[in-house]
Amino acid sequence: MSWRDGLRPLDLKRGRVELAHGAGGRAALQLVEELFLPELDNPALRTLDDGALLDAPPGHRLVVATDGHVVDPLFFPGGDIGCLAVHGTLNDVAMMGATPLALTASFVLEEGLPLADLHRIAVSMGQAARAAGVPVVAGDTKVVQRGKGDGVFIATTGVGALPAGRRLGAAWVRPGDRLLLSGPIGMHGVAVLSRRESLGFEAELQSDTAPLLGLVAALLAAVPEGTVHALRDPTRGGVAALLHEWARAAGVGFEIAEAVLPVPAAVHAACELLGLEPLQLASEGRLVAAVVPEAADAALHALRGHPLGRDAVIIGHARADPHRFVQMRTRLGGLRLVEWPVGEALPRIC
Amino acid sequence: MSWRDGLRPLDLKRGRVELAHGAGGRAALQLVEELFLPELDNPALRTLDDGALLDAPPGHRLVVATDGHVVDPLFFPGGDIGCLAVHGTLNDVAMMGATPLALTASFVLEEGLPLADLHRIAVSMGQAARAAGVPVVAGDTKVVQRGKGDGVFIATTGVGALPAGRRLGAAWVRPGDRLLLSGPIGMHGVAVLSRRESLGFEAELQSDTAPLLGLVAALLAAVPEGTVHALRDPTRGGVAALLHEWARAAGVGFEIAEAVLPVPAAVHAACELLGLEPLQLASEGRLVAAVVPEAADAALHALRGHPLGRDAVIIGHARADPHRFVQMRTRLGGLRLVEWPVGEALPRIC
Repeated sequence: MSWRDGLRPLDLKRGRVELAHGAGGRAALQLVEELFLPELDNPALRTLDDGALLDAPPGHRLVVATDGHVVDPLFFPGGDIGCLAVHGTLNDVAMMGATPLALTASFVLEEGLPLADLHRIAVSMGQAARAAGVPVVAGDTKVVQRGKGDGVFIATTGVGALPAGRRLGAAWVRPGDRLLLSGPIGMHGVAVLSRRESLGFEAELQSDTAPLLGLVAALLAAVPEGTVHALRDPTRGGVAALLHEWARAAGVGFEIAEAVLPVPAAVHAACELLGLEPLQLASEGRLVAAVVPEAADAALHALRGHPLGRDAVIIGHARADPHRFVQMRTRLGGLRLVEWPVGEALPRIC
Repeated sequence: MSWRDGLRPLDLKRGRVELAHGAGGRAALQLVEELFLPELDNPALRTLDDGALLDAPPGHRLVVATDGHVVDPLFFPGGDIGCLAVHGTLNDVAMMGATPLALTASFVLEEGLPLADLHRIAVSMGQAARAAGVPVVAGDTKVVQRGKGDGVFIATTGVGALPAGRRLGAAWVRPGDRLLLSGPIGMHGVAVLSRRESLGFEAELQSDTAPLLGLVAALLAAVPEGTVHALRDPTRGGVAALLHEWARAAGVGFEIAEAVLPVPAAVHAACELLGLEPLQLASEGRLVAAVVPEAADAALHALRGHPLGRDAVIIGHARADPHRFVQMRTRLGGLRLVEWPVGEALPRIC
């Protein structure tokens, strides 16, 4: 007698998620064995124990980051919720200056989700994890009734190793720091929105979702330790929210220059059409770095030497400012305040 | 100008979750600052950076475990989704023999959820985390539209430190190992089901949800290293699923004795009423241990010396069995197979 007795193989073409797949019985094990494991396989995951074992290199601190993903639609130009859930959390770990060691993934599936969609998402997660060299070592799957979820939500958590003595974070940003941006903004936000609302920008624009580990490593290797004060990826809320959060944490202001901001034509067009602000749109494969002025050129050179940072630019600098204003020098030479919106016109963008 | 300009304080009595609370703007920050931080506060969380810093003790390996929580209803006799999400993941880390260092929490909120409910859940999480001595160091909040979620889902991930040389896991169970169970089974499953279906067992029965760190520590301290082969909490699928999973991983069979199984009267009554099997019902504050025979008495004594293991019993043992049968010696002296169901009659029990 085998645990598979009476279970037909999953039909990955026409099958659907059922409540039994989340109930801790043999059907749940089958979903893991036949759909997830082949795509995400690694020794730690394969044990199917309650947790996974990891080894951190000696002389390091640990970094842990978590991110839920509820993007709608599940598949969008340039990516899907699977690779996004891998990239998003790996990038959060990398933004702390740490090397990601492992990921975990927790799925909330809606009854009725086509197994073909879930399989495509698992394939994408596996590809993204292998490309980044970071295994998914533990996971969990729950199923909710039809109408109590929306296809699939994925929460990923990343654990990374931070060299002793390294500290990056919003609180370390100082007046004078140069702001480096690694590439064009708003592409993820417009790609998702365009697919969701059938706006037709997909032909011109794909999500920029990408793992930033290599770009961060290249940057940090190129400048003296301690000269990069903070790194962050401008996801939800975009560059505008990022700079406001940094301003608040560090007690500084920022000035950026509109003329050098890399805004793709399709992002610009979508913003005109919908009344959106490019600075508030999400990117999923860009970073902003706050770097001491003396190291800014070397940092820019390092970013541009990496495929994901080819179009990097210095967009501005931090200022001593008790008001913590985020301002933009317009093309006409004036200064305008960059707004930090209460909400955002774009729910479920990641 | 402050980031709060134009934002009224959250109304924790009558307010509701809005889409803006998940959109990465100031409303999202306000939800974190006014609702989550006061309850979960600790230095790592307070930085609101992309990730949190941790220090693992030297000479240890790391354990990471993740668990999604979609329990329905959110509040049940003896607990709620908040403390359950803390206990569930801490227990998974503890079942590996590791000491939990930190938790992360990722929330998917449904638009319209009363803030009073969310606040109550945050309070419960904070209390559970403090009682266990394990901080929630990083978090994330997403909001989905009304009808695309179900109140709140919480995915928690735990990181723990495992002493070098310790290894526990399903694969290490050996024929002859004694099976210890720390207390009565099925209480969580019946408590949730009773509240959901208004069955009226609440008066007699509460969920057993509890953090098992202390119980595991007491057990492992009382017996020689290496004599506890595996630990697991019988959550979804209950003791039946647990033993079948161990049988499969270790290539052994099990025999347990019905006469010694601790099944509370209300659990028994609910099972009779609904046609359920106590062995398949979830517990959230119990553990099963596989222990070498020579250490079984000391292990039992250690469990019984802890408040959460007062009613611990030896329920059976592992057997050499190529069929990997899980069998129960009935009160009448016969042997019957313990079924490993395909699904389970109880979705969304945790």
